[in-house]
Amino acid sequence: MIRSQGKSFKWQGEYSGDLNCARTLNTELGVLSSFKPVIAEKQRDIKYLFLANVDPDIQNHLLSHMRRPRLIGLDSMNFWIKHKRPALLRLLKKVDIFVANDQEARDLSGETNLIKAAKKLSRLGPRMVLIKKGEHGVLFCSKDFTVSLPAYPTDKVIDPTGAGDTFAGAFMGYLAKAGRLDVAAIKKALAYGTVAASFNIEDFGAGKTSCFTLADLDKRLNKLREMVKF
Amino acid sequence: MIRSQGKSFKWQGEYSGDLNCARTLNTELGVLSSFKPVIAEKQRDIKYLFLANVDPDIQNHLLSHMRRPRLIGLDSMNFWIKHKRPALLRLLKKVDIFVANDQEARDLSGETNLIKAAKKLSRLGPRMVLIKKGEHGVLFCSKDFTVSLPAYPTDKVIDPTGAGDTFAGAFMGYLAKAGRLDVAAIKKALAYGTVAASFNIEDFGAGKTSCFTLADLDKRLNKLREMVKF
Repeated sequence: MIRSQGKSFKWQGEYSGDLNCARTLNTELGVLSSFKPVIAEKQRDIKYLFLANVDPDIQNHLLSHMRRPRLIGLDSMNFWIKHKRPALLRLLKKVDIFVANDQEARDLSGETNLIKAAKKLSRLGPRMVLIKKGEHGVLFCSKDFTVSLPAYPTDKVIDPTGAGDTFAGAFMGYLAKAGRLDVAAIKKALAYGTVAASFNIEDFGAGKTSCFTLADLDKRLNKLREMVKF
Repeated sequence: MIRSQGKSFKWQGEYSGDLNCARTLNTELGVLSSFKPVIAEKQRDIKYLFLANVDPDIQNHLLSHMRRPRLIGLDSMNFWIKHKRPALLRLLKKVDIFVANDQEARDLSGETNLIKAAKKLSRLGPRMVLIKKGEHGVLFCSKDFTVSLPAYPTDKVIDPTGAGDTFAGAFMGYLAKAGRLDVAAIKKALAYGTVAASFNIEDFGAGKTSCFTLADLDKRLNKLREMVKF
């Protein structure tokens, strides 16, 4: 059993056996319970915005200060799905991509089949839904296409905490660089997300993510590309 | 909740919610408890042999009558892992490919990480290990390479009973046709397995598998190939 804690508030959970699935033991909001972020003037023009997991009211406050973001990603977690569902549902209508893990997608949609879950979530607002499945890879659904990619295979799993954020960061980062949202760009962004996350899990905290290079990422990206080519 | 039964003996299980995971309610061996298959003379020269899931002693009996199979695949299930582990372990030393679902692989290896599980299983004898993960696709490990492919995405999941056998049949069938075991042939065989299984789950029993054509398979194969290309 591994206990871990992450995010700027205090989340405590455990992974027992299956490292794909964290069980929440306790969530303390701490300073974030009354946090009102102040957005600097020049940050209001950010084009690629990722609303990382905090209270949906804080995410909404932040979003309301942005001028014209080109792409808005949204993450959340079980705590908000349970305790702030109406606020989360309102926010979903304002974002382009909803990012969730498989359990969150099932909890929020009420569907067990993940493709059905993704489709149902996209009817709640976001035109794209990205479901992270840990060692089982990623599922992406939009109105126009569905993509499923396997995870980069590794048996060195030390701590999966933060893997989802790492995935989202690399995914959004690649899209910002590409400047396009077509299927080819989305697939490459998903692939960058999965290989970035594969580094994250190989050490505690940001032990690995703080020091890998773009060349490291590209090496794994090429291996992943080769692996799925048939 | 779906109850289903399959195989020539009587297995009763249920799928509740997550259709990836069947819970065994009861297994009755019936006529297979004392079955001694008689192998016709000309069948002894079969080159590509798949020992489908029955008592490992019956599988071993059958294997002992074959002359020189080029490739031997082995399937099993939780009942034999629990009740006939020594016989199963002996048999594993005589086969080339062990085919299991994720739970069986974990049960037999004692490892939760599936890549570790596959590596451990391959140390028990088979030079190749194929782990079927339902909607999450397939993982294949040999000494020389690891391949992970996503499942063909479908939200029409009626009954997954038999999907594993359908996968194995298409996988072995393609390898028999290809006559090679290099990485390209294995990947294509895995892809045929996954698309064949995707038809199986779309109806009860052999409702779909009894009538699809090679053209149907190839159509989904091409879609899968396109989906994972980035």
